[in-house]
Amino acid sequence: MNDPIASPPADEAESQERDLGRRFVELLRERDVTALEHFVTAQHAHELARAVAMLDEEERAELLELLPPEMAADLLERLPSVQAVQCIEDADPEVAAAVIHELPSDLQADVVGELEEDEAAAVLEHLEREEAERVRRLSAYSDEEAGGLMITEVLKYPADWTVGQVVDDFLSNSQLYRDYQVQYTYVCDEQGRLIGVLRLRDLLLSDRNTPLRQIMIPDPIAVSHHMTLDELYEFFQEHSFLGVPVVDDNGVLLGVVQRGDVDLAWLERADRSMLKRQGIMSGEEIRSMPLMDRVRGRLSWLSINIVLNLMAASVISYFEDTLAKVIALAAFLPIISDMSGCSGNQAVAVSIRELTLGLIKPTDVLRVWLKEISVGCLNGLVVGLLLGLVAVLWRGNPMLGVVVGVALMLNTMIAVSIGGLVPLLLRRFGKDPAMASGPLLTTVTDMCGFFIVLSLATMVIDYLQ
Amino acid sequence: MNDPIASPPADEAESQERDLGRRFVELLRERDVTALEHFVTAQHAHELARAVAMLDEEERAELLELLPPEMAADLLERLPSVQAVQCIEDADPEVAAAVIHELPSDLQADVVGELEEDEAAAVLEHLEREEAERVRRLSAYSDEEAGGLMITEVLKYPADWTVGQVVDDFLSNSQLYRDYQVQYTYVCDEQGRLIGVLRLRDLLLSDRNTPLRQIMIPDPIAVSHHMTLDELYEFFQEHSFLGVPVVDDNGVLLGVVQRGDVDLAWLERADRSMLKRQGIMSGEEIRSMPLMDRVRGRLSWLSINIVLNLMAASVISYFEDTLAKVIALAAFLPIISDMSGCSGNQAVAVSIRELTLGLIKPTDVLRVWLKEISVGCLNGLVVGLLLGLVAVLWRGNPMLGVVVGVALMLNTMIAVSIGGLVPLLLRRFGKDPAMASGPLLTTVTDMCGFFIVLSLATMVIDYLQ
Repeated sequence: MNDPIASPPADEAESQERDLGRRFVELLRERDVTALEHFVTAQHAHELARAVAMLDEEERAELLELLPPEMAADLLERLPSVQAVQCIEDADPEVAAAVIHELPSDLQADVVGELEEDEAAAVLEHLEREEAERVRRLSAYSDEEAGGLMITEVLKYPADWTVGQVVDDFLSNSQLYRDYQVQYTYVCDEQGRLIGVLRLRDLLLSDRNTPLRQIMIPDPIAVSHHMTLDELYEFFQEHSFLGVPVVDDNGVLLGVVQRGDVDLAWLERADRSMLKRQGIMSGEEIRSMPLMDRVRGRLSWLSINIVLNLMAASVISYFEDTLAKVIALAAFLPIISDMSGCSGNQAVAVSIRELTLGLIKPTDVLRVWLKEISVGCLNGLVVGLLLGLVAVLWRGNPMLGVVVGVALMLNTMIAVSIGGLVPLLLRRFGKDPAMASGPLLTTVTDMCGFFIVLSLATMVIDYLQ
Repeated sequence: MNDPIASPPADEAESQERDLGRRFVELLRERDVTALEHFVTAQHAHELARAVAMLDEEERAELLELLPPEMAADLLERLPSVQAVQCIEDADPEVAAAVIHELPSDLQADVVGELEEDEAAAVLEHLEREEAERVRRLSAYSDEEAGGLMITEVLKYPADWTVGQVVDDFLSNSQLYRDYQVQYTYVCDEQGRLIGVLRLRDLLLSDRNTPLRQIMIPDPIAVSHHMTLDELYEFFQEHSFLGVPVVDDNGVLLGVVQRGDVDLAWLERADRSMLKRQGIMSGEEIRSMPLMDRVRGRLSWLSINIVLNLMAASVISYFEDTLAKVIALAAFLPIISDMSGCSGNQAVAVSIRELTLGLIKPTDVLRVWLKEISVGCLNGLVVGLLLGLVAVLWRGNPMLGVVVGVALMLNTMIAVSIGGLVPLLLRRFGKDPAMASGPLLTTVTDMCGFFIVLSLATMVIDYLQ
């Protein structure tokens, strides 16, 4: 038996990998095809990804051109998909088409789906008509429906075949079927419509002459090619299947959606929406993208953010007279803003999590609010007292302590209420609950916080000076 | 064939589910066991989760007591694990033990692992000694190593068995093996050490009298029970297996780790660490937890945050004379703080993503910094110009525009540099890169931002008044 896989000491591994990355670039510059092939075969996926990340646009194009298409496809399969798309984008369309031809169907569709329309057309022109049409059809599905998540490598047989015929087919195509990661085999009618499912185990336990019709499980559960990611996720929570067949509107078998792929897509989407909530639209960025794309991606959010910030700042500006009289307040404004934003975001996170787990529905407004306001009162009291105490000790003015303490307490209660409920309302109106809550929340809680502390201060201005 | 699964119109479904949640609570209060059993069998997982979320502590305890153990276990399997643990915690230890006895091995270990030590001991006391020991051993593994991620339901046979014996065993145990979601069957020696792997397909294609030794794949790849989640994730990136056997230090087969479970655990950890980075320690909260636990969870972060905020505010305080002379600056302080924080967090997000995908190593400091500073210069220029322009137009003072614009530009460059590099440094020192970057980053960029804008203003104070 092989030894359980052991990793070399971290330092050693690190310096090794540094050299590997550089070595790859050198091999490419020397156009040493044999050594490049050897490198791609021998290295781990992580090392390949890092080596490719070091290449510029032209070097990436050259890489795909130098390697034989099967090997280039093998490389792309092992890279993160964002890098695979980058390589295909930068390659000559003819080279790109040859490589795409060698990819498995789901990756073909993913890569082509990510290309600009004219780039995709240029590449598909170089594929055979039938393949091009299949890729185009698959890449038209979104990543968040069954058609976009399925693999098309499924085994299907006519109902009048016998167990022996299937076993012989397995035997003669064992090389081709090597990558078919499905436990089930399907039975279709002459129109390609799904009529049954075969389990490997049943094949194993049946006589060679048994027709499939006798051992298949008839009327199998299938899902529509337009079933959404959310519905699929719920489907796999209900059923302990490893995969489910996907059919078109006529019941024709198109492929299989696997549980693992649904879980992955679902969590990746959660991850993306979390980045969006934080206002990090650059979530899709990798640093080997062109500079201007990276600048534009990050600026798109920064420019919205500056407008939101100016709105909040206008509240401060409105109370400038008060601020001029009690300059000590200036240091407390960012604290109240940041602390309320934090309380609000905690409530947002819990609401999104509970929506995701199905523990609350968008209509549970009152229940959620009661749970939030009880935490908000207690936490508001604690942080309000703390900040008030600090203000008194630091500035020696008891009324200043009362003003900032009460303001933080009230604004914490406002922040958890908004933070807890906004995701519910967004979901209710069919929006992604994660999408708008962050920036929306921060701006509103900032404005409320500045307003409360400065208007309280204006009221008791005589005791503050 | 069944119709592709269709969901009812959203509004209708919603009001239905509201009633379902209430109905469940009523059934429980009426102690109507038959109706409860029917409810648990008939409802979808999401509806069950929401119904259980409406229960208080005593009602949860009563629920497990009322239902037959197999049905209670079936219910727990369908709930989010945080709810399953809650139910077991609140139940009487004897009832809890009876339910745990019915759970699959991985869920047994997860649930018991989450209990307090004395609670776990109380529950295990009521299990048979052998089972209790197995559960205790499994629950001692962390969630982030192979032993904690594996399932122990694997099929293993001696090498001198024949294909016919295995097929007969399949046949006679088909009910028991129903839940075994593995495509592989293993061959072990007398000491239980893994010596080979059997593929279902090879069983299918071999004569009944063939001994397993002849058709097994010898020296199979296996992983140590202590292999970490990161290593497992990399392992499955390298190998296209659906699962890999797990062995102890002596090579004894313990179970199988499945690709899907590793992907899931890996993404869930990324999710958790993202919440931590945002300072939302309450990521684990659900609202049916006791109030004081929720308050404490959220306060633990809020109280750290208030200290960090006070550090940043002390910079403002230091420059109070300048601020008193140019009160207009007060409105720009929160803007500079928030905008720099945002730029910095964008850089953090990209670094963490690139580290995760393996595109950079912790030693790539210079390469990352060059990529960041080039974006930082351009974005700093744009947002600096924007804010400067706003300041001039709003306050009619050109020098104020120069001060806030230049300050925001410089601080954007500082923020992306820190944001891009801190995750690398944390990883280098063996820390979770996501863990500390957020709060650390925000405090440092706030302090720098306040310092830059206020010291610039102090220098040119004569032109600002």
